[in-house]
Parts: sequence; structure tokens; C-alpha cells
Amino acid sequence: MDKIRIGIMGYGNLGRGVEAAIAQNPDTELIAVFTRRSPDTVKIKSNAKVVAEADAAAYADKIDVLILCGGSATDLPEQGPKFAAMFNTVDSFDTHAKIPEYYERVNAAALAARKVGIISVGWDPGLFSLNRLYANAVLTAGKDYTFWGKGVSQGHSDAVRRVKGVKNAVQYTVPCDEAIEKARSGNNPDLTVREKHRRVCFVVAEEGADKSAIVADIKNMPNYFADYDTEVNFITEEELKKNHSAMPHGGFVIRGGETGGGYRHVMEFSLKLDSNPEFTACVLLAYARAAFRLAKEGIVGAKTVFDVPPAYLSAQSGAELRKTLL
Amino acid sequence: MDKIRIGIMGYGNLGRGVEAAIAQNPDTELIAVFTRRSPDTVKIKSNAKVVAEADAAAYADKIDVLILCGGSATDLPEQGPKFAAMFNTVDSFDTHAKIPEYYERVNAAALAARKVGIISVGWDPGLFSLNRLYANAVLTAGKDYTFWGKGVSQGHSDAVRRVKGVKNAVQYTVPCDEAIEKARSGNNPDLTVREKHRRVCFVVAEEGADKSAIVADIKNMPNYFADYDTEVNFITEEELKKNHSAMPHGGFVIRGGETGGGYRHVMEFSLKLDSNPEFTACVLLAYARAAFRLAKEGIVGAKTVFDVPPAYLSAQSGAELRKTLL
Repeated sequence: MDKIRIGIMGYGNLGRGVEAAIAQNPDTELIAVFTRRSPDTVKIKSNAKVVAEADAAAYADKIDVLILCGGSATDLPEQGPKFAAMFNTVDSFDTHAKIPEYYERVNAAALAARKVGIISVGWDPGLFSLNRLYANAVLTAGKDYTFWGKGVSQGHSDAVRRVKGVKNAVQYTVPCDEAIEKARSGNNPDLTVREKHRRVCFVVAEEGADKSAIVADIKNMPNYFADYDTEVNFITEEELKKNHSAMPHGGFVIRGGETGGGYRHVMEFSLKLDSNPEFTACVLLAYARAAFRLAKEGIVGAKTVFDVPPAYLSAQSGAELRKTLL
Repeated sequence: MDKIRIGIMGYGNLGRGVEAAIAQNPDTELIAVFTRRSPDTVKIKSNAKVVAEADAAAYADKIDVLILCGGSATDLPEQGPKFAAMFNTVDSFDTHAKIPEYYERVNAAALAARKVGIISVGWDPGLFSLNRLYANAVLTAGKDYTFWGKGVSQGHSDAVRRVKGVKNAVQYTVPCDEAIEKARSGNNPDLTVREKHRRVCFVVAEEGADKSAIVADIKNMPNYFADYDTEVNFITEEELKKNHSAMPHGGFVIRGGETGGGYRHVMEFSLKLDSNPEFTACVLLAYARAAFRLAKEGIVGAKTVFDVPPAYLSAQSGAELRKTLL
């Protein structure tokens, strides 16, 4: 059988993760990595080509699915619609509030080009969303809880780095065990923002900086920290590099609900990830397989994880899946 | 909008659960309950009709989806193909080893009648299967663990009831906490049957029965108990009725895997159910909604949870789902 020909747009942590995932999935092969950097400065692990992003169009017939590995803030809003006009695409657009607008733009481009573009793939949005959907469809009378972490939040780490006197920083979002247990109880309590998560910062201060001012600036920062119990730890740059360079993450999706006879039920999904980008990359590759199959069936337009039949993610046949996993 | 017209075939615990679920889902309505008993002896909670199973064919145009609520041992092997030839159907066929054969028989009947039949819906097979599939598609190098319980196993309870001197009995399957923690560790240990689950029996002995013989007969029973640590408790019929009449169940699906860069990840799904049949009924009704939509699109034949796009389970539109749950 011919392999699914994959292109990777952007070679950061996520792009490298997709490359590693392709090596684990023998029905896929990497054709090219596209970059905005000068291609000869980008060293990749596999034997695929490294190509300037500007030359991507020349690969329209050589690639079955292009996986967009840029960020949601500035890369994907431009790249999503642009490349959906040339390729079947999969991306990890994760700005929840802007998904409806992003969907419409990718949908218009993909429909016009008769391509399929699966957006917002990963774990949240992605696998967490799927579990929210299944749980809501089954337990129609109930309540959802999502907890994140323990894991590094890039947005919150960036916010700390912008504080005066901060040289470098990493912020962990930590779900509170007590709140998780309450959500699991099935009693569907109301939980405040402060009860659900706490925030733990590891900060490298600039020489001579006012540490108490840094602590106050972080703890009082609206939206990011003011509503949470926040812990600030000062460490050295060496300690930060040594102990806080990994990108673990994870979380919990819990729904408690009551069925018609008055019985209570709790559904829970959780992830414990040693590397957020490497795991996300594996989800993207599974959905690239799905995009390939949808495209073969002539299905076009923007899709989300909600629209994709689960079997399309697996390299196994329907008969194999029914025999081994059902 | 017209409601989805539902029929229920068989009015036991599962059928009653579907009736209760319909009351919670305003886009569905119950048209008729079909029974093998004399219809005038069957009292139902809603105002739907009670009809003899033999007269079901007269309802072919009055019902959008027929939910088959019989058992997998003898009811469904006959009813599945029979009613897939008249109705769009959903069932909970759960004899894992016989699913491929059952699929083929329902598929042939449904294809010939241009109907859709979603088989093996519930939580295992069903939601557990879905989580095994998603986890295997994402973490291609890894290991699966499924734990069941704490919950009543009808098959094991029946086996105990067949032991000489036993008047009545209930058997709980109990997952071992230590084994669950090992599976969650991500180290993917090999776990024996005995390490994963233990079995707890509550037995009402006949008057004058040899209790030590009962204990030995249960503990040494091949397949059912010999490979497990089994606990046998003798209680009165009154205690059994009072404390062991509920049908709680649940379990855990865990997959640990390693991605290309050597990072480890753990995915977990779990259910804690106060009433197994009432929860299963809710899953069946969600898939009845999906069957209705698939049929409207002209899709025919046997399907499983692997084939159904998740969005088809929800009463919300695609745009609402993207906005609220993605």
C-alpha cells in the first residue's frame, strides 16, 4: 500500500514531534519540512527535504496532508486558510474563543480548493473536547469540569517574564487534588477558579532586582494570577535550565450527571504527559491519517475532531478494529 | 423540529432505562414499547403504546429508530438481524468474541433493507472501546489495560447461583487498586489475571447446605473463579435484597505509551456508575440520534461506535459544539 505522504509546516517543538511520530507510524512518510528560516540552516532528523515556506506550492501534488505546526497567536490565523487552499491540512489552533471565526476562514478556503482541513487538533482542544462531547451526549443532565496540569503554561510563563526585574521564568498550572475529588464525587459542586487550580512560578530575577516587588507584581496580575493562589520561587538560571526545561502537561475532564431514575454517574478522562508537544504531535498525525481518508472519499471543507469517525484515525481495518478493540 | 420517534424492544431494566432517558432528551419521543409478554400485563411509565413483538412490523413507518433492549445470549442474535430488516436499530450486543459474526449478520439484513444498524453500543463494548481506539491511534507504541468494577457481574452471579446448595447470590468484580496504580505509572508492567481483579460473592445458602463445600465449589470453578482471589460471604435473603439489589458498575481503560523522543504518556478513561442499565440506556439513546441522522443521509448497513462521527450523538448543531465544547 502506498504510504500517506506528509509535509510539516514549521520545525519547532511540535514539528519535531510530528517527525518523531512519523517514524513510529509505518503507513506514513515524511516528504518535506517547510520553514521560514533559510532551509540550509535547518537540520532535521530524517532524510526528508527542507524547503522554504515560500516554495510550498510546488509540493501540492507531492504531499497528501500538510500538518501545520505553527502557533495560534500569529502563525495559524494566516497559514490555516492560506495552506487549506493548496493542501489537505491538520492544525492545532487552540485559541478557544476564536475557533468559530477560524473555522469559517479555513472552511471557505478548503471548500473553494476542494480540500479538507481538520482544525484545532490536539488534546485541548482535541481529545478533551471529544470527551466533553461524549459525556454531554450521554449524561444530558450534568455538569462539566476541566482541570489542567500539572503542566507548563506558555502564556503564564510569558506573562511572568514580562514582569519588571524578571530575567526568566516558568509557570506551572497545578490542579487542586481536593477540587478533583469533589468533581469526582458526582455531587456537582460549584468550584471557584481559586479552588480548582493553583499557580507555581519559578523565577530567575535580574541582578539587584526588588524580589518583593516581583512577587507582588505577579500575584496581583489581573486575569493571569490575581484570582489564584500563586507561589513564587526564586531560583538561578542554571536551576531553571536543569529542572524546568521539560514540557510536561496533562489534566482531567470530568462530568457528573443524573439519569432519569435518579441514579448518579461520573465519567472521567485524564492525560499525564511527559512532553506536551510530542504527544500533541501524535494526535496531529492520527488526524492526518483521517484527513487523507476523508479526502479520498471526496469530503471537503473544514472539520474538527467532532466530525471525524474514530475508525479513520487508526491504521487498522474496520474488521480488525471490531475484532481487537471493540 | 420533528422529534426522533423511538421504539423500545423489550421492557426489562435496559428498556426502562431508555424510557427514562427519552424523558430527559426533548428531541426524542417514545412511540411504542414492544414485548414478548402479553401487552396488557406490561405497565410502562410514559403514555406510549405497548405492543406485542409479533406486531412490530406494523410500526415500520411510525418509528425512526428501534432500540433493542434484549440480552446478548439469546435475544439479540435473533432480534438483531430480524429487526434490522424492518427498522434502523441500535443494540448493546456485548459478547466480544462473537461481534464480528454478529456484525456480518446485521450488516447483511440492514443493507438489504436499506437501513442502518448500530451494534454493540454501551460502555464495554462502547465508550471503553472508543477510548481504546483513540488511545491506540495516538500512542501507537504502548500497552492497554482494562479494569472492570466495582460492579455486579451477571454472568458470575449466575455461575454462583448454579452451585449446589446456593439459593441466591450476587458477585462483585473488584479491580485491585495496586494494579490500577501500576498501570497508571506508565511503566507498562505485565499484570496477571489474579493481580488485576478480585471477586467478592454474597451468597444465600439453602437450609442445611454444606457451606464449606459451597465455598470450595465457587473458589475452584474454572474460568469464573479459579484464577482469582475470591471472597465468599454468607448472608440472609433479606440482606441480599436490601444491600445488593442495586446494579452499580464502572471501570478503567488505561493506555501507557512512549513517543518517538522517548517520552512517556498515560491516557485514562473511567466510569463510576450507580446504575449500569440506566447509564447504558443513555448511551443507546445518544446512538439512536446518530442512527437517525445517518439514515437521513442515506447511509446503510451495520455500524459500530468506531464508525459514527461524535457530533452525530449530540442534539447541538456543529456551530454550537465548536463554540461551547471544542
